[in-house]
Amino acid sequence: MTPVAPSHSPAPIGVFDSGLGGLTVVRALRRHLPEESIVYFGDTARLPYGTKSPRTVLLFARQCLQFLMQFQPKALVVACNTVSATAMAGLADAFPVPVIGVLEPGSQAAVLAARRQKTRGNCTIGLIATEATIASKAYPQAIARLDRGIHLVGRACPLLVPLIEEGRPDSSPVVTAVLADYLSPLRALNPQALILGCTHYPILDAAIAGFMGPDTELIDSADQTALVVKAHLATMAAAGAGAQPPTPYNIQPAQAAAVKSGSLTCYVTDQGQRFESLANRFLGAAIGSPVWVDPELLERPELEEKA
Amino acid sequence: MTPVAPSHSPAPIGVFDSGLGGLTVVRALRRHLPEESIVYFGDTARLPYGTKSPRTVLLFARQCLQFLMQFQPKALVVACNTVSATAMAGLADAFPVPVIGVLEPGSQAAVLAARRQKTRGNCTIGLIATEATIASKAYPQAIARLDRGIHLVGRACPLLVPLIEEGRPDSSPVVTAVLADYLSPLRALNPQALILGCTHYPILDAAIAGFMGPDTELIDSADQTALVVKAHLATMAAAGAGAQPPTPYNIQPAQAAAVKSGSLTCYVTDQGQRFESLANRFLGAAIGSPVWVDPELLERPELEEKA
Repeated sequence: MTPVAPSHSPAPIGVFDSGLGGLTVVRALRRHLPEESIVYFGDTARLPYGTKSPRTVLLFARQCLQFLMQFQPKALVVACNTVSATAMAGLADAFPVPVIGVLEPGSQAAVLAARRQKTRGNCTIGLIATEATIASKAYPQAIARLDRGIHLVGRACPLLVPLIEEGRPDSSPVVTAVLADYLSPLRALNPQALILGCTHYPILDAAIAGFMGPDTELIDSADQTALVVKAHLATMAAAGAGAQPPTPYNIQPAQAAAVKSGSLTCYVTDQGQRFESLANRFLGAAIGSPVWVDPELLERPELEEKA
Repeated sequence: MTPVAPSHSPAPIGVFDSGLGGLTVVRALRRHLPEESIVYFGDTARLPYGTKSPRTVLLFARQCLQFLMQFQPKALVVACNTVSATAMAGLADAFPVPVIGVLEPGSQAAVLAARRQKTRGNCTIGLIATEATIASKAYPQAIARLDRGIHLVGRACPLLVPLIEEGRPDSSPVVTAVLADYLSPLRALNPQALILGCTHYPILDAAIAGFMGPDTELIDSADQTALVVKAHLATMAAAGAGAQPPTPYNIQPAQAAAVKSGSLTCYVTDQGQRFESLANRFLGAAIGSPVWVDPELLERPELEEKA
């Protein structure tokens, strides 16, 4: 049997987020890799991760990626800044496929943007993110690895995710008051770039850009992450790597076979209409009903041992 | 051996919330029942429950109450409006001790307050709560059971919990903007009472009272819930009911024996400093380090079967 190059194999890309913010990354993946099928997993029963400890985030993230492994993905995308910032070291080598986070691609894009405007003298990047992402110090470390001359200033913004999920218009006095509170200290530094360090935040990009002014470029890591995934798949295809072997984890052939080229299938741990009603705004397109996964199934220790 | 009357037995009261809001109920319990020892369980790894579906809330709540059963409590208090509103029917008969929620006591207190001011003509109660509590319609049903002549108007306030956990002062422009947005439609109705339908909200009671004005009495269900618990224990003592028999669920005698009269021991599912640093504001007193419980242990099906 001729090996199937992964970038053209029917194997899907697995995308994981604590909730539905990762759909902004799915949107970018579909733009850059329209032929790829995507299986999305949102841990909506246990979200948000952004106020939780690194140990809990790692535990939950491992369980979610294990779930996605049953679809024999060619790559796993951690479309969540909190997980990318706090748990990548514990995830990167735990699976037999590439595990790609959003933090390194976002940092690269920010450094490139800051350098483009370096003529302004200072070289400052702002960062808005969850409490857990800020506390991890992962962004300043990543930026320093790329360019030690850049000053990064971060701000935790715990109200932004629930604010965005409420679906208020940019003109709402609440949006104005919250953005002014979080962004004023950053705007005073006149940064070259502002990293939207949570996959929810691009939904408010126009309001954030309006507040920050034209001198600050907003960095949404979704696009850069999609380009990194594309490069990974191209490298794997060039190396002639075959599709991943089946894993012993809870294989459901009927579900795996249902993955079609260019398709998107969503799995969530919370039942209800909330995901579907919010998802269209994040994806920029209609989405079908997500499939419910009992969160109890994710927790069984015997599943962990098999991974 | 002489049976020990429960109200004076060393058996603790088990108190459960998705996070730390339930500590406002603990505060009231300690005021009304200072001799009772309390074991508190906060499911901080999976909070908030207020945006989740009834099925997920019931699943999580059952697991948490099962955990508390190992301490052989004389009563279980569901110090969470979301659980009280969406899952009490599935919890009340699932355990061999009284399970007391905050919704019925809060509704009783609100109806009494509204009646006290009925001379004003209309009889309207406002309700602010989580999305899940509002969607459940449990409060309007409870109010209607008590008094069909009262009009209840509810408003979901998803930003209030993260806002309160940020610890902003009442004078913050963000607090002002958020309260004005949520409360203006309710204030326009000039209600006799406003139910603070989430155990977090009493932290903002001064700001809420200031916005609503002197004609609206704020209803914090914590006090009324503590009085209901006190009445339950008195009834049980009068009936000569003994302490509950040990359950087969994961008994840890060392932990159970550590419960002392008037003591408070806290268990949480997320590791980290967040609970401890926020808890003092909710409890109104210093709190020791909570004990971490691996959330994986809560999920094991074999534990469910034993409960």
